[in-house]
Amino acid sequence: MSEKKKGLTRREFLRKTGGAATLAGVGAGGLMLSPMMARADEAPKKWDESYDVVVIGSGFAGLAAAIEARQAGSSVMVMEKMAVPGGNSIINGGVIAAAGSPLQTRAGIKDTPDLLLEDMLKAGLYLNHLDLAGKVAEKSNEVVQWTIDFLGTQYQENLVHLGGHSVPRSYSTFNHSGSAIVLQQIAKLKAMGENVKTKRFLETFIRDKEGRIIGIRMQDGYRFPKGGGAVRFVQAKKAVILATGGFSADLPFRSIQDPKLTRDVDTTNQPGATAEGLLEALRIGATPVQISWIQLGPWASPDEKGFGIGPHFAAGAAFPYGVMVDPKTGLRFINELADRKIRADAILKTGHPCVVLADSQGVAKIAPLLPKQIERGVVKKFDTLDALAASYGIPAGSLRETVGNYNGFIKNGEDKEFGKYLQKDVKPIGQAPFYAMRVWPKVHHTMGGIQINTQAQPLDLDHRPIPGLYAAGEIAGGVHGAVRLGSCAVIDCLVFGRIAGQNAAAEKVRS
Amino acid sequence: MSEKKKGLTRREFLRKTGGAATLAGVGAGGLMLSPMMARADEAPKKWDESYDVVVIGSGFAGLAAAIEARQAGSSVMVMEKMAVPGGNSIINGGVIAAAGSPLQTRAGIKDTPDLLLEDMLKAGLYLNHLDLAGKVAEKSNEVVQWTIDFLGTQYQENLVHLGGHSVPRSYSTFNHSGSAIVLQQIAKLKAMGENVKTKRFLETFIRDKEGRIIGIRMQDGYRFPKGGGAVRFVQAKKAVILATGGFSADLPFRSIQDPKLTRDVDTTNQPGATAEGLLEALRIGATPVQISWIQLGPWASPDEKGFGIGPHFAAGAAFPYGVMVDPKTGLRFINELADRKIRADAILKTGHPCVVLADSQGVAKIAPLLPKQIERGVVKKFDTLDALAASYGIPAGSLRETVGNYNGFIKNGEDKEFGKYLQKDVKPIGQAPFYAMRVWPKVHHTMGGIQINTQAQPLDLDHRPIPGLYAAGEIAGGVHGAVRLGSCAVIDCLVFGRIAGQNAAAEKVRS
Repeated sequence: MSEKKKGLTRREFLRKTGGAATLAGVGAGGLMLSPMMARADEAPKKWDESYDVVVIGSGFAGLAAAIEARQAGSSVMVMEKMAVPGGNSIINGGVIAAAGSPLQTRAGIKDTPDLLLEDMLKAGLYLNHLDLAGKVAEKSNEVVQWTIDFLGTQYQENLVHLGGHSVPRSYSTFNHSGSAIVLQQIAKLKAMGENVKTKRFLETFIRDKEGRIIGIRMQDGYRFPKGGGAVRFVQAKKAVILATGGFSADLPFRSIQDPKLTRDVDTTNQPGATAEGLLEALRIGATPVQISWIQLGPWASPDEKGFGIGPHFAAGAAFPYGVMVDPKTGLRFINELADRKIRADAILKTGHPCVVLADSQGVAKIAPLLPKQIERGVVKKFDTLDALAASYGIPAGSLRETVGNYNGFIKNGEDKEFGKYLQKDVKPIGQAPFYAMRVWPKVHHTMGGIQINTQAQPLDLDHRPIPGLYAAGEIAGGVHGAVRLGSCAVIDCLVFGRIAGQNAAAEKVRS
Repeated sequence: MSEKKKGLTRREFLRKTGGAATLAGVGAGGLMLSPMMARADEAPKKWDESYDVVVIGSGFAGLAAAIEARQAGSSVMVMEKMAVPGGNSIINGGVIAAAGSPLQTRAGIKDTPDLLLEDMLKAGLYLNHLDLAGKVAEKSNEVVQWTIDFLGTQYQENLVHLGGHSVPRSYSTFNHSGSAIVLQQIAKLKAMGENVKTKRFLETFIRDKEGRIIGIRMQDGYRFPKGGGAVRFVQAKKAVILATGGFSADLPFRSIQDPKLTRDVDTTNQPGATAEGLLEALRIGATPVQISWIQLGPWASPDEKGFGIGPHFAAGAAFPYGVMVDPKTGLRFINELADRKIRADAILKTGHPCVVLADSQGVAKIAPLLPKQIERGVVKKFDTLDALAASYGIPAGSLRETVGNYNGFIKNGEDKEFGKYLQKDVKPIGQAPFYAMRVWPKVHHTMGGIQINTQAQPLDLDHRPIPGLYAAGEIAGGVHGAVRLGSCAVIDCLVFGRIAGQNAAAEKVRS
């Protein structure tokens, strides 16, 4: 991505012209760490614990990294600041893209990594770091098969067609949750003798004189968000892997990047999705990339907290098999399978929650989830479209007309209004009962983070890898550019998590 | 903008529970600065130079800061890495917004700071830091009058109506260049006994044990971009002011933030518009904000390098008084006074340079510039619309129809096609000769940078001011959000430059 500056870099220049002179200002008295200073401790006299590889964060990426490092024979410690392992991944929706998969072959869907990459770039407004996005697309099917073959993850039999994807290509876990992957990852680690150590919080990195990351200072017994743990020094003889996730739940930091995202905007993420890990990386000179691009999920319900169970209805039933209307007009207003930003912006623009609906045929694939969605009042069930309209204050005639027009599009195989991709199994809306839900966007994913290369190495502000450090998952920016496509987070985390773990394990042991 | 985290911050916690223990890892041997480490030297045994206030950068912001500090009785050194002073400001277009100005009153234009703020927020996609944007809008007229009354800057008699502004409100310097302001600033400083010291390059900040910025290490005799200067330590007894501008010309850094901005995309900026100052600030823990929002100027000509002289024709004549057409179709395709992003995106979407044109009445206000624009081949002159069409390969009939329709809009006082604001003095296009120019966007402004508060203090990653440091101008992010409106850069630089200078001068002297 980056290009070489003209001539020598300043640092190259300094080295060649006598770098020593330029360090004359560094006194012998030692540099105290002050509140405003970049924090990078020196090694303690004695390490409290020592491992080959220290993994910070226990979501998809951290666990994948740990598994790879452990498999390669390294000793590993996975730490998690929260009281439970799994980070945000364990409450993730469990949908995971694979280009050129066996399920696609079976369904007669033609797909390639290049097509997935194109979809990612288009949604990402071409801000994506091409090498990173390309790596994820290329490895997408391999990593999904890895979850099946190696982890034993079980998936639904049918692919899901999510917004922004040219074709159906997303596997959905049997329980509609990322926990189906995370719990298998944890089980696999356990089988290798490793447990995620919870309530452990990264305080700062520790570097040697050459700037190599050789360990961390952490709190053990940390209670989020207050602290209160005992300070411990942990040696990483090979490397530290940062997999601390995104910052969707970090009110101060997200509102610096996007002041609209105040306390009044909910998030789908767990409370621990905060920026501390990212900030520590910035403090040691990691390069920030595209941090102000923050994604809102268009399928979120204002009638429940957090991610909830509504998104499965919106994304799994209403968007592909039904319609979304503005309750004020009863009209559709956007391609229900456009990318997340386009849909979230369109909903926000109406100024009020909108309504998504599907009929009894449209909910077939998520049927097992319906009872709970209805019980919680997130999804409602109606005998007629008119009753549905009345419940949400939608002009009934207008809604009937919208559905009539849409059914005509289905019969003719083309959405002449918004160009929505119509799956083969889409049927006209008409078979009672009808199901509906309100949607209003919530903060879901932070596209930006620190810059990494395809080897999962964070790059510093001089475009050089930070030795002894790897990063993977949502903390790394650039993969998704401006907008992340649904079901591309899990592959991102697993692909770069595995790379980070493999590379960390291959480092020489330093003591 | 930012909000307090729940409970104690980690640092507050550490302090209360015995911060000393947490620093056990800091050995007595001193922390060597390595390539990857945040750079913040300790004080040298002897300073080579000493001033109350050190200003880095000699554009609008740096000079405004220096003037204020000097006026308040502080000793000041303004340094500039390039061989000439003025930074990018001296080649800026010299247009400067003022809400509620005497020129508006004279022209019967109703305007308020709130309306300017609204325009800024709308263009900025509401990513703007409200307090910063509000401060700029509120002080806009005051600071323009300051350039007139205090600096003696001379302006054209008529206001310019730039894209994205609800009303005409922008002053234009007599010579259509920011040099009209910059040279007066330099003269004012000279009258106070100060000269801009060129070829001086910031290498790193120097902090005391409490983390306060107390000076800098720099190169004297620096030759951009290679270096080669002598290393000097400069004390800042009160404060350092960072006013190093944006990074539109920094190929590696801008392409990390937006990979589309490769070497093939030109910039309007001078070659010194690079990121070193910003990177130094990040290295000491300043908070990055919205760095990936980079603006392209829609009025740039592909027929000349850099900013050039074409933008005055496009922005001062063709956009307000003429039309822009796609040469393939001969049709208008966007409101010629939409904000810069909307216009640049629309031009880029056509895939080829577009054509802007005006008739002899439309060029009245920029008439003195025409001969040079024509001589350089940037603007072309035609006796008839058909000749103009032929020259650019535009379907002639289509162009005549476009102009006919547009003239109808002018007669009826409403642009029914794109809703362009029609100034009172807009006349139908028809009086020969006709003038035209090709447009193709160039990188023009970097909206993001480091976070500051309304006192021009950079905030660190813990949301605290970095003591002894101020920042102003393009290096500070958040003022303009996603998109900066034309003529709002100069007020941003001058308003926060003056605040920075006043606050720096008011600091206690430390030695």
